[in-house]
Amino acid sequence: MSNYINYNYKNLKVFCEDAFKKFGFSQGDSEIITDVLLLSDLYGIESHGMQRLVRYHKGIQNGLIKVEAKPEVVFETPVSLVIEGNDGMGQLNSYYAMNLAIEKAKKSGVCFATVRNSNHFGIAGYYAKMACEKGMIGFAMTNSEAIMVPTFGKLAMLGSNPIAVSMPAEPYPFFFDASTTVVTRGKLEIYNKLEKPLPEGWALDSTGKGSTDAAAVLKNIVAKAGGGIMPLGGEFERTGSHKGYGYGMICEIFCSIVSMGLTSNHTHIGGKGGTCHGFAVIDPNIFGNAAEIKEHLSTFLKELRESPKSEGADRIYTHGEKEIFAYKDRMENGIEVNINTVAEMVDLCKYLDMDVKKYLGDVDLEIKNKSLY
Amino acid sequence: MSNYINYNYKNLKVFCEDAFKKFGFSQGDSEIITDVLLLSDLYGIESHGMQRLVRYHKGIQNGLIKVEAKPEVVFETPVSLVIEGNDGMGQLNSYYAMNLAIEKAKKSGVCFATVRNSNHFGIAGYYAKMACEKGMIGFAMTNSEAIMVPTFGKLAMLGSNPIAVSMPAEPYPFFFDASTTVVTRGKLEIYNKLEKPLPEGWALDSTGKGSTDAAAVLKNIVAKAGGGIMPLGGEFERTGSHKGYGYGMICEIFCSIVSMGLTSNHTHIGGKGGTCHGFAVIDPNIFGNAAEIKEHLSTFLKELRESPKSEGADRIYTHGEKEIFAYKDRMENGIEVNINTVAEMVDLCKYLDMDVKKYLGDVDLEIKNKSLY
Repeated sequence: MSNYINYNYKNLKVFCEDAFKKFGFSQGDSEIITDVLLLSDLYGIESHGMQRLVRYHKGIQNGLIKVEAKPEVVFETPVSLVIEGNDGMGQLNSYYAMNLAIEKAKKSGVCFATVRNSNHFGIAGYYAKMACEKGMIGFAMTNSEAIMVPTFGKLAMLGSNPIAVSMPAEPYPFFFDASTTVVTRGKLEIYNKLEKPLPEGWALDSTGKGSTDAAAVLKNIVAKAGGGIMPLGGEFERTGSHKGYGYGMICEIFCSIVSMGLTSNHTHIGGKGGTCHGFAVIDPNIFGNAAEIKEHLSTFLKELRESPKSEGADRIYTHGEKEIFAYKDRMENGIEVNINTVAEMVDLCKYLDMDVKKYLGDVDLEIKNKSLY
Repeated sequence: MSNYINYNYKNLKVFCEDAFKKFGFSQGDSEIITDVLLLSDLYGIESHGMQRLVRYHKGIQNGLIKVEAKPEVVFETPVSLVIEGNDGMGQLNSYYAMNLAIEKAKKSGVCFATVRNSNHFGIAGYYAKMACEKGMIGFAMTNSEAIMVPTFGKLAMLGSNPIAVSMPAEPYPFFFDASTTVVTRGKLEIYNKLEKPLPEGWALDSTGKGSTDAAAVLKNIVAKAGGGIMPLGGEFERTGSHKGYGYGMICEIFCSIVSMGLTSNHTHIGGKGGTCHGFAVIDPNIFGNAAEIKEHLSTFLKELRESPKSEGADRIYTHGEKEIFAYKDRMENGIEVNINTVAEMVDLCKYLDMDVKKYLGDVDLEIKNKSLY
């Protein structure tokens, strides 16, 4: 039996929207949340789509995420926004923040927005893309439950702390979205679901030594028992561990520090989430002619793609290309969902009194690794 | 015989300032250039101090760097500056750009400055630090001669493309300055001078395969014959190669793209330098109370330093700490300069008709690896 079940995008959209409406979100808000989650699956970022649904389910269930919460601007200038997230859904707080930031950037040329007391927001790239679609350079970042162990440490102190950037270009935009850890927690979750050992150079056990045991590392992260994921650059300074740790710090600065929110090491303690986000929007016209700048970037991206390949490689990607290809493929051929994730979706249907067969077809699956959340 | 000669900071300062005056720079400009170069040595970043003097020497000699050039603002808004560097010294263009950006950020809350047609500017951190000393968050980046091979490629297409960030904190600021490659070209130059093989996972030969031969890699970079340095994250996507390549792209966007300057792969061709820089200054007061934000960052940095260490590690550093310690040590105990670098300094003295013994003491050294520049 295959480990994956293929679902049509539209069916998953209906399932997701109905689930979030059942949780009490409005039609509009359910659409926003669903759009963020499914863009991740469509982009081939399996770790942040349906796979993460269980975290929202558990988060709402245990009160970490407040369904009724609305974001509020608590401080602003023509180039900045500080937003209180009131423990609401990260997607809704972030969508709100990014739209306001885009409006300010249209007038002022640039705007930074920082959000505190929020929750997991899905893929950072979604919000960077919102700015890019308006012809702007968009930045999006978030902190998270601590999973990154700083160089020479053994306790996770920073989140996966992704930094996403998107900027208009032809034939497709520059779109970069990456955690500042070697890999995300979501990747570990997938290895755990597949019951595969982790590659070397990704994770650390509770004493700070390398580990390939996904389940143990994930349990330690939740229990704050030591260990976690290495910064981009790996375990040692020789390969640049301190650099990934540094990018993680930059993310923390724009999310939790300037918002006066919780740093990653203080989030997700005692029934409180406290995740913080950071956004920036820059109008390229502040540097001259946006159309010329776009063409200049497009030329460079083309040169990169057309530059000589290393032996055995058949292409050089520019950032965002893989996502474009994945999107087309999944819209045509459907989205492959891991059966353990489907089991979580079945569980969610049952919890919300939704008809499993109607939404997910003829599946009868049980969740493994229930203890993770 | 030791491979290093110890020099007092003040003596090196006099030597440097006099050398740049001999090249035709004013007293003030010579002081700025010297200050940037020696801060690097004082901070323990040997690759970007006296070790790089030979590049400025050769650059001025062969006309790549124009001594008489002055930077000009060619486009500006209340939140931005585009500066034409006119092939001048990178340090002077950057010092000019950062000072103007700080002034604009004082009024507008934020300013981005981009510089085209410049030259190597020393350590990026110097300029980020300028903003930090005024209570601001400072960013500094630069592209350079192409040395970074994109993931799956075999030809260097991006520079070492460092990103530096500094932000006020106690007892010392957050100060992060790192190339988006695994290591800098300067590190390879040091291994070459020491005639040591490179560690695995740093560099690629002309076919795109791993290499530990510093001299061959450096020669290939200059000849644009293929190979170069890996992005942070190494050779493969599994360890995040595409992420380092992505940070290199972010650097390129703020340096060469928005300035409409030369991307790294087009710099240093046909007697033209064309290096581009990018700077940003953000007043923390746009997010509320700068003093509270500073305290919040200081607390987090303290928590990081005090978090549990991995087995065998005696401390966790926060970014900028090592530089502070190195600075104190070198101010007290002098700066160790590699004898091959001293040989280059002797050569410079002879070229500029400066008294070797007066400036550098009783040394008689010859340069190795002359062919590199």
